[in-house]
Amino acid sequence: MSETIGFFTIPGESGYEDLTLNLAKRWGADCVRDCDGTKLSDQILNSGMQVYSTLCIIREHNEYVRKHPEHQQQVFLESKRILCTGSSVCLPLLDGYFKKQFQVNESVDSLRYWQVFDRTSQKEIPSSDWKYDSLSQSVLVSNPHAFHEYSVDFMAYRIWEEINMYNHVTNDWNNEPLRQLDPRYPEVREYLLQWLDAWCNSHRETSIVRFTSLFYNFVWIWGDDENNRHLFTDWSSYDFTVSPLALDQFVSRFGYSLSAEDFINSGLRNPSHVAWEGKMMDYLDFTNQFVSSFAKELVDVVHRYGKKAYVFYDDSWVGMEPYGHRFSSIGFDGIIKCVFSAFETRMCAGVEGPDVHEIRLHPYLFPVGLGGSPTFTDGGNPALDAQKYWVQIRRALLRSPVQRIGLGGYLHLTEGYPDFVDCITGIADEFRMIKDLHQCDSPLVYRPRIAILSKWGKLRSWTCGGHFHEHPDLDLLNILESLAGLPFEICFLGFDELSLDLLDDIDVIINAGIATSSWSGGNAWCSDTVVEILNRWVWKGGTYLAVNEASAFPGCDTGLRMAPVLGLILDDGSRLCHGRWPICEARQYTTLFGNASLFGKSNILILDSETEIIKAEEGRIVAASRSFGAGRGVYLSEFRYTAANTKMLERLLLWCCTNEVHQAFSCDCDDVSLTYFVNKKILVLSNTSNNEKSVHCETPYGLIIETIEPFGMVIMAKGESNVFS
Amino acid sequence: MSETIGFFTIPGESGYEDLTLNLAKRWGADCVRDCDGTKLSDQILNSGMQVYSTLCIIREHNEYVRKHPEHQQQVFLESKRILCTGSSVCLPLLDGYFKKQFQVNESVDSLRYWQVFDRTSQKEIPSSDWKYDSLSQSVLVSNPHAFHEYSVDFMAYRIWEEINMYNHVTNDWNNEPLRQLDPRYPEVREYLLQWLDAWCNSHRETSIVRFTSLFYNFVWIWGDDENNRHLFTDWSSYDFTVSPLALDQFVSRFGYSLSAEDFINSGLRNPSHVAWEGKMMDYLDFTNQFVSSFAKELVDVVHRYGKKAYVFYDDSWVGMEPYGHRFSSIGFDGIIKCVFSAFETRMCAGVEGPDVHEIRLHPYLFPVGLGGSPTFTDGGNPALDAQKYWVQIRRALLRSPVQRIGLGGYLHLTEGYPDFVDCITGIADEFRMIKDLHQCDSPLVYRPRIAILSKWGKLRSWTCGGHFHEHPDLDLLNILESLAGLPFEICFLGFDELSLDLLDDIDVIINAGIATSSWSGGNAWCSDTVVEILNRWVWKGGTYLAVNEASAFPGCDTGLRMAPVLGLILDDGSRLCHGRWPICEARQYTTLFGNASLFGKSNILILDSETEIIKAEEGRIVAASRSFGAGRGVYLSEFRYTAANTKMLERLLLWCCTNEVHQAFSCDCDDVSLTYFVNKKILVLSNTSNNEKSVHCETPYGLIIETIEPFGMVIMAKGESNVFS
Repeated sequence: MSETIGFFTIPGESGYEDLTLNLAKRWGADCVRDCDGTKLSDQILNSGMQVYSTLCIIREHNEYVRKHPEHQQQVFLESKRILCTGSSVCLPLLDGYFKKQFQVNESVDSLRYWQVFDRTSQKEIPSSDWKYDSLSQSVLVSNPHAFHEYSVDFMAYRIWEEINMYNHVTNDWNNEPLRQLDPRYPEVREYLLQWLDAWCNSHRETSIVRFTSLFYNFVWIWGDDENNRHLFTDWSSYDFTVSPLALDQFVSRFGYSLSAEDFINSGLRNPSHVAWEGKMMDYLDFTNQFVSSFAKELVDVVHRYGKKAYVFYDDSWVGMEPYGHRFSSIGFDGIIKCVFSAFETRMCAGVEGPDVHEIRLHPYLFPVGLGGSPTFTDGGNPALDAQKYWVQIRRALLRSPVQRIGLGGYLHLTEGYPDFVDCITGIADEFRMIKDLHQCDSPLVYRPRIAILSKWGKLRSWTCGGHFHEHPDLDLLNILESLAGLPFEICFLGFDELSLDLLDDIDVIINAGIATSSWSGGNAWCSDTVVEILNRWVWKGGTYLAVNEASAFPGCDTGLRMAPVLGLILDDGSRLCHGRWPICEARQYTTLFGNASLFGKSNILILDSETEIIKAEEGRIVAASRSFGAGRGVYLSEFRYTAANTKMLERLLLWCCTNEVHQAFSCDCDDVSLTYFVNKKILVLSNTSNNEKSVHCETPYGLIIETIEPFGMVIMAKGESNVFS
Repeated sequence: MSETIGFFTIPGESGYEDLTLNLAKRWGADCVRDCDGTKLSDQILNSGMQVYSTLCIIREHNEYVRKHPEHQQQVFLESKRILCTGSSVCLPLLDGYFKKQFQVNESVDSLRYWQVFDRTSQKEIPSSDWKYDSLSQSVLVSNPHAFHEYSVDFMAYRIWEEINMYNHVTNDWNNEPLRQLDPRYPEVREYLLQWLDAWCNSHRETSIVRFTSLFYNFVWIWGDDENNRHLFTDWSSYDFTVSPLALDQFVSRFGYSLSAEDFINSGLRNPSHVAWEGKMMDYLDFTNQFVSSFAKELVDVVHRYGKKAYVFYDDSWVGMEPYGHRFSSIGFDGIIKCVFSAFETRMCAGVEGPDVHEIRLHPYLFPVGLGGSPTFTDGGNPALDAQKYWVQIRRALLRSPVQRIGLGGYLHLTEGYPDFVDCITGIADEFRMIKDLHQCDSPLVYRPRIAILSKWGKLRSWTCGGHFHEHPDLDLLNILESLAGLPFEICFLGFDELSLDLLDDIDVIINAGIATSSWSGGNAWCSDTVVEILNRWVWKGGTYLAVNEASAFPGCDTGLRMAPVLGLILDDGSRLCHGRWPICEARQYTTLFGNASLFGKSNILILDSETEIIKAEEGRIVAASRSFGAGRGVYLSEFRYTAANTKMLERLLLWCCTNEVHQAFSCDCDDVSLTYFVNKKILVLSNTSNNEKSVHCETPYGLIIETIEPFGMVIMAKGESNVFS
């Protein structure tokens, strides 16, 4: 039984009323929710808990779609490329795509946006040289260039709402596929407003309407070959928002038009990991404006019925931009995010506007979890899974609180997993304890004040657009996962807003990623002004911390635009004949690097004898440092989240600012983090490992020796017994 | 004692006359040479052997240089880059350079070629904004941009002939540094012609004048810090040929002028590993024209005295271009190359024009060898070294003969190394046996006919400009080392000359290297025509074998321009959101890949389901294949010369052409190669390993089982005893 109650959302399940009410009591739940495919019974609805209803506003309108298929959502696709070996080329449009997801939009409005390309010469074919054959759903190119490749960018309806499609295909469902509407069409908006009004009216028991989420899903293009089902997936890209109407409206607002090829981008599309050009940023703003304004209309309906409106920060969240300047104007009362990691917890906690930030814990109450691995089924260990996720989330919650936690899925699956039930009981208590610690108090923060510099800036605060397990190799994502639990003040800066005034309040800039990426900056590094501002700021005392290929720019002779600050060169093979400075570790940095472990980069060379090597590995640089005026350039070859690397990053950041690695409260164990709440003089030790840890902590109040159980958390108040005196 | 005699050049040593004559007898020498710092005594000169004299024509004229320092050779240098943190910037020119090598050329002629750059904005500073201060040897920049970096491209005399400088510094010599003259100046040419005439006249005993080599050394720029002494080294670049006079003459011929920055190239210079633009190719041709014409004048002098003129294909060979169209017009009677490897042996053997191709074996008779490792001194094992080099050279000699071999250095050092003396005796005999095999006979050659496609084409036949130990990571150099001993016909093609007619005689094109390199083609891949020709040629039945990043071009959406043929994509991180085809080896290729071992590339992705994986390693592609019309694209992630990889390459090449790996004569041991001389029906087995090998060889005449001693060679004639019946 929980020692504390509240701030916990339980998924109710009809047919399991006793279980629902029993677990609600054990976990201290004050709120009950429905889930995809579940409906709550009266016994649950009347249990005294607040009721939460999930609503995916754009789907479950198949009846409407049958009448107005032209109001379905769309996407630009590129046909498979075909080599010209004869006198004409035939391009079948949907070859290779999942036919149940797409249907060619053959309307006149659609066709005027199609483009055919010679992909060898990268030149567009004039429309007089191609025609669409509706029967074969192919484009025929006349007068092609022999042995060049051709493809067509065309528009297709998305005829299956993607989340429904995924659940359907994964779980072998038999019910009718759900279609999805595009609220760009005024008729759709009017229809949805009326529909929502009726829904609110007929669901008096619902206290909270949880939108899942708004209108446009993250892009998720499927192929017809099961060996490569997911052709393109990005949690932050806007490919699923296009339509002839949207593009026409875009011209009216911006005075120029977007083409199919702006979206197809030679088949590369526009993943959010690659720095976007101005056009796509305009399109983001354009879509965000529309999404925000219609979302506000929907929220107003909910509010009119005295209900709260929460939104799910996943799935159909595209265009919503919780870190954008329009989000708070929508008027959501709460934001909910399902989280696996510390950075996602901070991402939810940091959204401004809603009163309630709620996280959905993993594992969900489903038979299988990530990548099909067993959870609540043979071979699964949901209690261990829950603990592993929780200790990462806890690191973030100790730095920055959220208001609620909860679970999702089918409650009956917990039967037979009593250790899971116990584990959640413990987690709920720990959550409420941490929440209490943050009441009128905050954890100690050290200098330096840190800015994450990327092309996205604040808009992608605490994220690289996706989950950790999807992109485990992104340096910045790993850094965010470490920083999420570290005692520093973090802000997110875009290249466009860089100025010396703004940087006055920053001690360290972290800039991380591979050359082309939006995270390292990509094409933002073409600007001399950026380099000049950063050079000047470091010279005056700042630290520029570069990871991997940060500041790389193709036209730059040293490979890295910040080469003078870092004292390093990124070689693309052009320096095969240049001499190389020897790579020797400077002994004084042994403690600084500690037990951290990273791969060195063989194509990072030393600029001159003034660069100091913090760490090398088989002749490859792992970490380096260089004085630059009153400041410093620091380099890491990559970053991967581990406990030891996190502690190294913490020491490195302290050292950048102070030349020392000392902090007032410190702990000698990589797996144990330490948080000090200033007003209440409370020290929290939390163990992220599955092993018992004995630690020595230095504090201004003396040395503390403590043993912490696996995944355990210890809270000590100053003056309490002999542990913190 | 040698069983055979002749075709062997021994270095004579005065004071060791008996040793010289004794060893000459043991090794079957018919020619005696002098060396740097040695002079032959009358006893040696009159021993009946031909006499070979080495001559470095542009040095040993310090008396002349004292009178005309302005006739010394020169180079463009870039000063160290300085960050502007105040109101002006001072750029000291020679900071960081080895002061004994360079001296600023302050003449008016020189200064008009100087350029000052803002290296941050990559813009040139107008000459009104900078001035040279002779006293401090610095350039002062006025009105600089704060926090930008500046440097100056300037011209310097090279005041120490580089080979002399190297020997001097390495061996702590005390004699006067030798200066070098630039024969661009008409006065120098006249002086050198008279000097050579006088030399020939006073050296009646000399039969062969060996030029070491002509006028311009490979570029070798030294720094003042012993930790990074060799700032820039390239055996094939033209940096050491510049002068105001040369640049002025260039304008007259080509109608446009070259700037200092054309040579400095943002500090990257123009290493021969990076594809040159047209300007540098014009400059190469311009210099080659001059070098060839003056070399011919010198050779004519030698011939007038009834002597032969040989040239050394190393050191000051720049501008000579033995694979260029002017080389044979110079009239050299012989060409000599010191070789460590098989590819260098083929490089020497393949030069057209001279009657005599001679290779200088390693180790040289010096106390220390490569990188300062001991040779004829404590810890050295010169006999083992000699064997290891020889078995590689032997692979090449079995395919393509040279006329002579020889040694260099100080003969007295062989005392105390009787095993070395024996080893050379054996090598000399093996050489002469192989030479005999090639008389009126040639080794069996299989299809395919192979072309190496690079930006350099024929001009850099059998080389990537330097030794194996300098650039062990160059894929093409490793491939050349393998091919040098394989039974195929090889030619070298440039991108500029690609045509379908030319390709009619080719079965496989090998194209190898990293993206930017001249070996893979670099910017040559911007041409649609190149892609079109190759697509068409493969479609008709050719095989395009790509290694590493061959066909990579930055603007190409698939990363590789030959992606349709290879069925592979080179990802720069832009495809982080794209689905990936699974990487599974196709079982039928197990025998094809055999014992080979190469690292896979993580950024090579599969284009579609038609690509077959020959070999993968931890999810990274090592080797792949794809049908393309009647032809095929084949990919290798890298290439490194080993015995097993060589055999794999041999199988792969046979398979490309025939879909089988079978050849008429084959051997089951990676370390043993097999050569069949067609007319004499002689089979040669050679073992490159230091272990005894028992091998099974399949031949049209039946199976042969044979044991070969370490480093051994077995010659079998058909009909001889029971081994080859």
